[in-house]
Amino acid sequence: MKSFTELNQLFQQYLTQNAFSQSPTTLYEPINYILNIGGKRLRPLLALRGCNLFDGAAEKALPVAMAVEIFHNFTLLHDDIMDNAPLRRGQPTVHTQYSVNAGILSGDAMLLYAYQYLMKIDNKLILPELMTSFTRMGIEVCEGQQHDMDFETNPSVTIPQYLKMIEYKTAVLLAFAFQAGALIGGASRRAAAQMGEFGRNVGVAFQIQDDILDTYGDPAVFGKKVGGDIAQNKKTYLLLRAWERADVEQRRQLDRWMLAPLEGMDEMAKIDTVKGIFTDLGVRQDAEKVMNLYLERAFDALEDIRELNFGKKEVMRDWATELMGRTV
Amino acid sequence: MKSFTELNQLFQQYLTQNAFSQSPTTLYEPINYILNIGGKRLRPLLALRGCNLFDGAAEKALPVAMAVEIFHNFTLLHDDIMDNAPLRRGQPTVHTQYSVNAGILSGDAMLLYAYQYLMKIDNKLILPELMTSFTRMGIEVCEGQQHDMDFETNPSVTIPQYLKMIEYKTAVLLAFAFQAGALIGGASRRAAAQMGEFGRNVGVAFQIQDDILDTYGDPAVFGKKVGGDIAQNKKTYLLLRAWERADVEQRRQLDRWMLAPLEGMDEMAKIDTVKGIFTDLGVRQDAEKVMNLYLERAFDALEDIRELNFGKKEVMRDWATELMGRTV
Repeated sequence: MKSFTELNQLFQQYLTQNAFSQSPTTLYEPINYILNIGGKRLRPLLALRGCNLFDGAAEKALPVAMAVEIFHNFTLLHDDIMDNAPLRRGQPTVHTQYSVNAGILSGDAMLLYAYQYLMKIDNKLILPELMTSFTRMGIEVCEGQQHDMDFETNPSVTIPQYLKMIEYKTAVLLAFAFQAGALIGGASRRAAAQMGEFGRNVGVAFQIQDDILDTYGDPAVFGKKVGGDIAQNKKTYLLLRAWERADVEQRRQLDRWMLAPLEGMDEMAKIDTVKGIFTDLGVRQDAEKVMNLYLERAFDALEDIRELNFGKKEVMRDWATELMGRTV
Repeated sequence: MKSFTELNQLFQQYLTQNAFSQSPTTLYEPINYILNIGGKRLRPLLALRGCNLFDGAAEKALPVAMAVEIFHNFTLLHDDIMDNAPLRRGQPTVHTQYSVNAGILSGDAMLLYAYQYLMKIDNKLILPELMTSFTRMGIEVCEGQQHDMDFETNPSVTIPQYLKMIEYKTAVLLAFAFQAGALIGGASRRAAAQMGEFGRNVGVAFQIQDDILDTYGDPAVFGKKVGGDIAQNKKTYLLLRAWERADVEQRRQLDRWMLAPLEGMDEMAKIDTVKGIFTDLGVRQDAEKVMNLYLERAFDALEDIRELNFGKKEVMRDWATELMGRTV
């Protein structure tokens, strides 16, 4: 079995060979830009790993790896416009570097190219299944992004709604990458579906961990400003759980800080107060419990795959555990 | 063979039955809105007609008809944002009625749903071919839109570049609709490709006619303000041809009016002067010649289809001729 480093090299090489050099450059330059300002290449690696785990030559999954990476970056282009984000991976976002129109249209082209790469896989027998799963996944990602935007103005989001949102917005793409890779690698349908379940649950756990790190992470390791979610009134697992557990006075405080307009707010005081309430209520521990529950579900799905021996399962469990610590 | 009216009824019924009633409504309401504020349903009709011409039951082409209508409306949502257009079919555009974010995200979902409908066709054997053509077509439409936007700031667009742009932006979708419909209707690959050629050439002719009508049409029949392209500095076939044929003084006049900022311009004087130069140079006649050339090419492609008898070919020639007069 190849190492993650080897798979990463394989993908980087393919990405370089398949740079978008077509005309008009006004359409294709933003695509090359977003694909080359870094990123962890997490999703393409999962596709290659899914294939390679089932003894398929990882190379066979390169087109689907490219498809998921292009799809992911398409969502970044459009989400960054919708979220009015100036930076992505520390660099100007496409709509800042080029224009909003470039962000929209190059994004559209990327979604179409994701399909084009998907159709390049050798085994045409599994193509209809891949196309169907990919399309359903894409629709779920749109629904997830819409829910995320709707939540901003909805004061009564529930934890189940929140978990569904992060599942759709993030986890379904990780699930697709593993499932598609496994299918290409020769896994049975059932085994591929279990790999998808593994990816989906790891994805939700990963997002909950993201919420925890945003408030409790070490800024040097996490790489973002700590407390950003609180500053932005973001409805994270921590906040929703705090609302559930708060007494009348804590609820009043939370509402006062987290439902008020951002302008003119003392950000430091806000982060301190809200974080203090979170700590008093023990919501970090609750979040870690739920995260571990999803991780357990992921491991159960993995355990259930007869085709994989213990050694391979261990590699995947280690990978997921490391991912939670953000060292991958 | 069914009449266009019958095909239209068939499509309208399917569209009504397949209204987007999913959740979140913030994502799906804009989709229903754009699909129900009118429109000629030209593209879905071509898909049904393509199928029905080759003796296929038109019903079999309903999913692909839906796919092309959804795809077309996806491009409207995004183009209207890029073009900053307040109205579409006399109604507020989606980004005006809802928000720019709704225009972007509901548009993305529509592109994915277009694929989902495409995958509903019964004959799975032709699915890979349809998906490949559809994806290539979609990419060409993006390239066409990008060229169109680039042309706004490019003072040296050539007529071949312009014809390529309208082919990509408009004609390739008509070509796909006919070709896909024909394939579903049981046409040979060659016959389906010829139907595509027919549609592509009719599409280019249609766009050139659109340029002519914008300057020379009867506003009562045309339904838009005459002279709008001139007022907006649009690089149409008429303008590009006038630039080619102008003498030094005419060129100076054209540049003065058509390369200047729109603000503070006397619009009536501008339309009068530029239209006067067009008339002096006979560019309307040139445009009609080129339009007829594309129409001839369309008829040649049609003629070449052995599977169709004379009566059917006559129906299609009449349809194309009527389309040029905008009575369809």
